[in-house]
Amino acid sequence: MINAVGRDIPDEILRKYGKEPFSGVHYRDNKPYKKAEVTARGMVDPMRNKMVSSIREAMEKCNAHDGMVFSFHHHFRDGDHIVNMVMQTAFEMGLKDLTVCASSLGAAHSVVADLIEKGIVTGIQTSGIRDRIGEAVSYGKLKTPAIIRSHGGRVRAIEEGDVHIDIAFIGAPTADEYGNLRAVGGKSDCGVLSYSMVDAKYADYTVAITDTLVPFPNYPPSIPMIDVDYVCVVDEIGNPAKIASNVIRMTQDVRELKMAEDCAKVMAATPFFKDGFSFQTGGGGASLAVTRFLEPLMEERNIKMSFAIGGITKPMCDLLEKGYIRTVVDAQCFDKTAIESVKNDPRHYEISTSEYANPLNKGAFVNKLDFVILGALEIDTGFNVNVTTGSDGVLRGAPGGHPDTAAGSRCSIIVAPLIRGRIPTVVERVVNVTTPGEAVDVLVTDYGVAINPKRKDLIECLSASGLHIVTIQELLSTALNIVGKPEPIHFEDDIVGIIESRDGTIMDVVRRIKPQTEIHEIIG
Amino acid sequence: MINAVGRDIPDEILRKYGKEPFSGVHYRDNKPYKKAEVTARGMVDPMRNKMVSSIREAMEKCNAHDGMVFSFHHHFRDGDHIVNMVMQTAFEMGLKDLTVCASSLGAAHSVVADLIEKGIVTGIQTSGIRDRIGEAVSYGKLKTPAIIRSHGGRVRAIEEGDVHIDIAFIGAPTADEYGNLRAVGGKSDCGVLSYSMVDAKYADYTVAITDTLVPFPNYPPSIPMIDVDYVCVVDEIGNPAKIASNVIRMTQDVRELKMAEDCAKVMAATPFFKDGFSFQTGGGGASLAVTRFLEPLMEERNIKMSFAIGGITKPMCDLLEKGYIRTVVDAQCFDKTAIESVKNDPRHYEISTSEYANPLNKGAFVNKLDFVILGALEIDTGFNVNVTTGSDGVLRGAPGGHPDTAAGSRCSIIVAPLIRGRIPTVVERVVNVTTPGEAVDVLVTDYGVAINPKRKDLIECLSASGLHIVTIQELLSTALNIVGKPEPIHFEDDIVGIIESRDGTIMDVVRRIKPQTEIHEIIG
Repeated sequence: MINAVGRDIPDEILRKYGKEPFSGVHYRDNKPYKKAEVTARGMVDPMRNKMVSSIREAMEKCNAHDGMVFSFHHHFRDGDHIVNMVMQTAFEMGLKDLTVCASSLGAAHSVVADLIEKGIVTGIQTSGIRDRIGEAVSYGKLKTPAIIRSHGGRVRAIEEGDVHIDIAFIGAPTADEYGNLRAVGGKSDCGVLSYSMVDAKYADYTVAITDTLVPFPNYPPSIPMIDVDYVCVVDEIGNPAKIASNVIRMTQDVRELKMAEDCAKVMAATPFFKDGFSFQTGGGGASLAVTRFLEPLMEERNIKMSFAIGGITKPMCDLLEKGYIRTVVDAQCFDKTAIESVKNDPRHYEISTSEYANPLNKGAFVNKLDFVILGALEIDTGFNVNVTTGSDGVLRGAPGGHPDTAAGSRCSIIVAPLIRGRIPTVVERVVNVTTPGEAVDVLVTDYGVAINPKRKDLIECLSASGLHIVTIQELLSTALNIVGKPEPIHFEDDIVGIIESRDGTIMDVVRRIKPQTEIHEIIG
Repeated sequence: MINAVGRDIPDEILRKYGKEPFSGVHYRDNKPYKKAEVTARGMVDPMRNKMVSSIREAMEKCNAHDGMVFSFHHHFRDGDHIVNMVMQTAFEMGLKDLTVCASSLGAAHSVVADLIEKGIVTGIQTSGIRDRIGEAVSYGKLKTPAIIRSHGGRVRAIEEGDVHIDIAFIGAPTADEYGNLRAVGGKSDCGVLSYSMVDAKYADYTVAITDTLVPFPNYPPSIPMIDVDYVCVVDEIGNPAKIASNVIRMTQDVRELKMAEDCAKVMAATPFFKDGFSFQTGGGGASLAVTRFLEPLMEERNIKMSFAIGGITKPMCDLLEKGYIRTVVDAQCFDKTAIESVKNDPRHYEISTSEYANPLNKGAFVNKLDFVILGALEIDTGFNVNVTTGSDGVLRGAPGGHPDTAAGSRCSIIVAPLIRGRIPTVVERVVNVTTPGEAVDVLVTDYGVAINPKRKDLIECLSASGLHIVTIQELLSTALNIVGKPEPIHFEDDIVGIIESRDGTIMDVVRRIKPQTEIHEIIG
């Protein structure tokens, strides 16, 4: 069945997963739905305790067995030790047919890649899927299609019971012996534990893993004791240098700076740029640089931001400290400054990922966003954006909050160079749709600014902005003129990934790519 | 069927409500159970808003109709306007067969009493039930038995689906237009919104009612926007003078002071009285006075309290300020000092009532209590306590956190005078059991201290304390010697109330009392 972004979603996929094709970003607005039943075991006896001596003991107490779904958060980013420790233990226990339901997976999770190749991990549900895991999935080594969701979509999926978590493993920088967990105060602070809040509420069992046990009560908790079954102390939950080492570099690239400045000009040309506006930006070089171009414009107009969301980085914290932002709400800390800020600045709040972006709760922060600056691996002439697969068809990205913020915001701005190396960003048809064009308003490139034709209001206010306004077809022509038409990618028929829309309908499917050697033979 | 506290629970009640008889305080420990399915409607469209112009409009948008269950919190105590406003509107809309599911009901809720008498309110689920409502129920004017629960038991009941809330009405001192609700910053601050947190999560619809609309985002919220459907601004949600007017008087009564001092001595004689102990006390004169006797004992031993819970009052805030308490966790503010403290002192935290006392979550604060000081209307020789019905059989009390803290704590201490007026507190058999003797450890009276025989450890450590230790049978004899044996109360057969144990099993039933005129004829 062809969905609302023109993608053919095989009926057998819709049937098998009990899903509908994507039908527009507001399709499920205000329609009643049921959340999943939660199973719990009451801690009625106050003398019972939650401490276990090892991850293995925790897993045994949670009745770990074949076929289970284990969940994880990715707040430790490239410094995460939790996923590997748990999955290694599962392997040693001889478990098989396991599904990893993580808020994101990346380079740190080599054990998962190994276990996919061994056929022990047979399911992946995630936002980010890259490196060895992305390749393993793209080349068909996972037994079931990977299910790829946005951050808001993941909360929705767990709450609606699309995925049932058997055991949630939550790495916690600090914990008390009754399971009050905090993201600060330990050896491996990550600032917030937003992603894991829904896991703790919906999993059959929740296991906290910490390397810093603190006195009861560890307050205020990110995850409260009422949702935690067991607490396990290990030597090291993460590598602090890698959790927040990737201090986002401030770009010096002239092209990126120019695009960032243009983004800020786009914002300033709209009626939404007024006192009390709200803002989010991604962590890419150009996106991030937008923040610094905002400051003089805000100064000039004498306006303040009511709130910023993120994905928080140093530039945002700097604006908070200088008084340009009233409130920062934080679902992920990208660098050490953000971690220190959420720990110490009372105007900087941890929020749940549901509060951030869940489309089916009663109103998330993304709905109140005026502006979001986002990246793209590819964008097509329908303004559909791909941030999941590379132009070679290999899974190498993450929807993250992209589809959530684009759908929620008054003005979503994609910033991307027209060409990367010899690869065009603007294409006729993206390899996969992550964010539907319906939710994308403006594209800022180094070759001009294109506005989604459905946003007549923006076309009008931007026409007098002095910015170089072009159509997206013009950008496509320019790209084709420079690099020529790219060779098509060669896919097999079988489906290795499902890209869910944030509301749970199916946005796209990812097909297996032919082994590289074969491709080389075909394309030369 | 005779339950574990010797009460005969009619089989038809157990069948009709699908319930088991009370079977001991740890009966449901660690047994898996399912929580209720939640129905919600997603706010996917960011342009939709939540503001309504009146309570009536909110009710219409929530499809209010006959037979519904409306829920309320009682943080505004005797100053509450919300219940009356909503129920008056329901009456004007011609609704009938309504159930009021409140965390407590009291003197402020005259409209509910009227609507019970008119036959429009046909169900009551509450902790506190007193004044006109207590009388109306006791004399059989409510069409179905009132269901009486502890604070922790109410959360459990809502989470387990024993009661399904159709519309939760939450009075909020401040709200933004997207439904982030706070208990401070407005004209009628109540400090915390702990009771309503579960309502907001489980109700089909949640309506916020405020008299102080503030800019978005109203952070950090007690109730987040993700759980709120509509926001309604009214002139006045409460009478601030009555919300916290009842500044708890510090007793000057010599008898109460003596008992309070004895409670503190009991505490100090146990091994639990050491650095890091935890403590809760009720709001009664003697209970409250215990706090002041603790200070010199803590000073002498050079120890601090790790945390205090409540029901928070000025004496506890004073100890916090003086450094005798490390953390205060607060599920209800009893006076203005407590409200100011939770608003301003970062060591004083708002908690949900689930975190406070829900027996079937994965571990509530009450489980970590060393000491709780509680009152009693009656206590029998099995240490069973009645705080629900008076000795005349009329509903005039509230389980509140009594059964929760007694069951959770290491040492639960009841403080009560042996005789009030001509009415003995220690009796052979309480009119109704609210808290089972199994969970009650010590009784401090003005005629001596009785220890539950099952607490051999306490008998041992208290025997050398210098306190006047007696058996509870001796206290009963003393009472009988002074006031004689009280006349029995005359009940009809029909059941007007069900007292649920905190775990949802049935602790006791309340029977209709004969009309007073009739009683007068019989007894005098």
